[in-house]
Amino acid sequence: MIQYQFKIPTVSGQLDDQIQAKIDHKTKPPGSLGQIEALAFQIARVQKTVDPQAGTLHHYVFAADHGVTAQNVSPFPAEVTQQMVVNFLQGGAAINVFAAQYQVPITVVDAGVAAEPFAAHPLLADRKVARGTADFSVEPAMTEAQWQQATESGAELIRELCEQPENQFFSFGEMGIGNTTSGAALMSAVMNLAPALCVGRGTGANQQTIDNKVKVIQLALKKHGAQLQTGAAIMQHLGGFELAMMAGAMVAVAAAGRLFIVDGFLATAALLCVSKDQPEVLDYAIFSHCSNEQGHKAMLEALGVSPLLQLNLRLGEGTGAVLAWPLIQSSIAFINNMASFESAGVSQEK
Amino acid sequence: MIQYQFKIPTVSGQLDDQIQAKIDHKTKPPGSLGQIEALAFQIARVQKTVDPQAGTLHHYVFAADHGVTAQNVSPFPAEVTQQMVVNFLQGGAAINVFAAQYQVPITVVDAGVAAEPFAAHPLLADRKVARGTADFSVEPAMTEAQWQQATESGAELIRELCEQPENQFFSFGEMGIGNTTSGAALMSAVMNLAPALCVGRGTGANQQTIDNKVKVIQLALKKHGAQLQTGAAIMQHLGGFELAMMAGAMVAVAAAGRLFIVDGFLATAALLCVSKDQPEVLDYAIFSHCSNEQGHKAMLEALGVSPLLQLNLRLGEGTGAVLAWPLIQSSIAFINNMASFESAGVSQEK
Repeated sequence: MIQYQFKIPTVSGQLDDQIQAKIDHKTKPPGSLGQIEALAFQIARVQKTVDPQAGTLHHYVFAADHGVTAQNVSPFPAEVTQQMVVNFLQGGAAINVFAAQYQVPITVVDAGVAAEPFAAHPLLADRKVARGTADFSVEPAMTEAQWQQATESGAELIRELCEQPENQFFSFGEMGIGNTTSGAALMSAVMNLAPALCVGRGTGANQQTIDNKVKVIQLALKKHGAQLQTGAAIMQHLGGFELAMMAGAMVAVAAAGRLFIVDGFLATAALLCVSKDQPEVLDYAIFSHCSNEQGHKAMLEALGVSPLLQLNLRLGEGTGAVLAWPLIQSSIAFINNMASFESAGVSQEK
Repeated sequence: MIQYQFKIPTVSGQLDDQIQAKIDHKTKPPGSLGQIEALAFQIARVQKTVDPQAGTLHHYVFAADHGVTAQNVSPFPAEVTQQMVVNFLQGGAAINVFAAQYQVPITVVDAGVAAEPFAAHPLLADRKVARGTADFSVEPAMTEAQWQQATESGAELIRELCEQPENQFFSFGEMGIGNTTSGAALMSAVMNLAPALCVGRGTGANQQTIDNKVKVIQLALKKHGAQLQTGAAIMQHLGGFELAMMAGAMVAVAAAGRLFIVDGFLATAALLCVSKDQPEVLDYAIFSHCSNEQGHKAMLEALGVSPLLQLNLRLGEGTGAVLAWPLIQSSIAFINNMASFESAGVSQEK
């Protein structure tokens, strides 16, 4: 049976009281910084210190093509995956703009684009598993060996960085025409929800395309149903190379005791596949935004989490994850730099 | 009759089509950056250019005391206003931490703290109107002359900055023990809503204090009802020096064609007093966050706006406004720096 390479450790609650006490002595009414406080608590807990650090955020955009595009599930032609990779390398995409603004280094990963390998480029990591997945409405999206390769490539990309103490945060985005159909299939299989409740507009599908996406997923679930027992198997049968690679990276980050920022619908679907097998992964996950894609809200609710941003984003690339980075830095600045009632000589409640 | 000194101009829609076209040609599905796109549109429109600029954000924290604290409306002693001003000047408050992180210069304004004037300090602007307002459940919070002085002081603080082209954005926060009672009274009067629907927990009031806040406001509305015909008169009778000064600053920013970021419950209540008299002000307002204070959501809904952040903040000081600044900068980076389909050679929808 396929399974993830790493065992994710449970986060110790040993410092919980000390962390909460530090937060509660800041010069403000208790709890008045809302999610900023909750975030500081989570980060301090994972980093096992009352003085957490932001360090550097490393962002990865995983790109791959999907065999299921043969079923007319996207309004964009499949070549756009390849064209957008070139756009990422040239610095013209939304993720480039936001990453540059926040000084976040990005790596563009060819996880399985249906084209010749790209020319070498400083931002590019060539980890092409194959030229696109198989059409999962007909056969498994990838073989077990391909799943293994994608997952391990994702882990390998971040493993060396995790050896250096300044690399505390990672974030992941994706690009792949047709991949919201794959994401909805993953969601449907993990949550055992009807495909119609999981499928959304994607990059702008009309009603006919949406109906088609639902039908394709129904077909796939019927075909592969018996095999979909674990999150890993669900990813292998219904996922994409970029999503499997992202899931592998998430597992490796958590296993190394670092944190990662979860982007939108697709990143959350990839995370669901991990958390089905290793729920401990959720302790290491910071949820950045609630997207405008139907299904994302349902996944977040099922996980019981409130993301930081609700900007009606539905772009992908990890744009929401990177846009949340300043707030994460703010939560760390808050717990480290704000005065306490005692140090500032401010009276507490009557 | 008291009224604001400036007439706020209507924003011309002359460039609307050009701005929208620039946004729609970016390499992403139309509308997929959600509120980031809407924000870029608003800023470009106010700045009358398709190439808007972020320039510098200037933040002001207005502090003042409230006579209504005599009615036991806050769990914190009134001295905390003064103590927190010292904390702001020493750099230990939440707003200092976030402003430092985002390199936003801040000015702490003594609008009417109930204490001796503070010693001179590089961050301090002494605009003390009086040592706290009168108890508005007994008499008008301020005289007409005091309202005028507070309003003009707010305008004067930002007027010179507005002459320099790099000062495009302003944001405003407040500190004043008891001021959520004032804010709820302003909201109740402007929106003609029952006080019980406007009063919230403030900095952490228990049910008894909340009931007391409601009673105090009911009393005040009964007493001053006939005089509450304009937003200016509502502010004079029920407001605070810090809120009147903030309103004056908002009017002046809009009159100068610049934008301002609206913080939480109290800043929104101050804005309501302005928009009742000059609805044009709303074109210049960017709503930063929806707070955890009951009533804030109702005000935002009545205004028909969706703020950028929903972090359950209820601190004040303008913390939410400053936390939204990176997203505002992102919207400007998006419209200026992202590639178009044509320039990047990316295919559009089929």
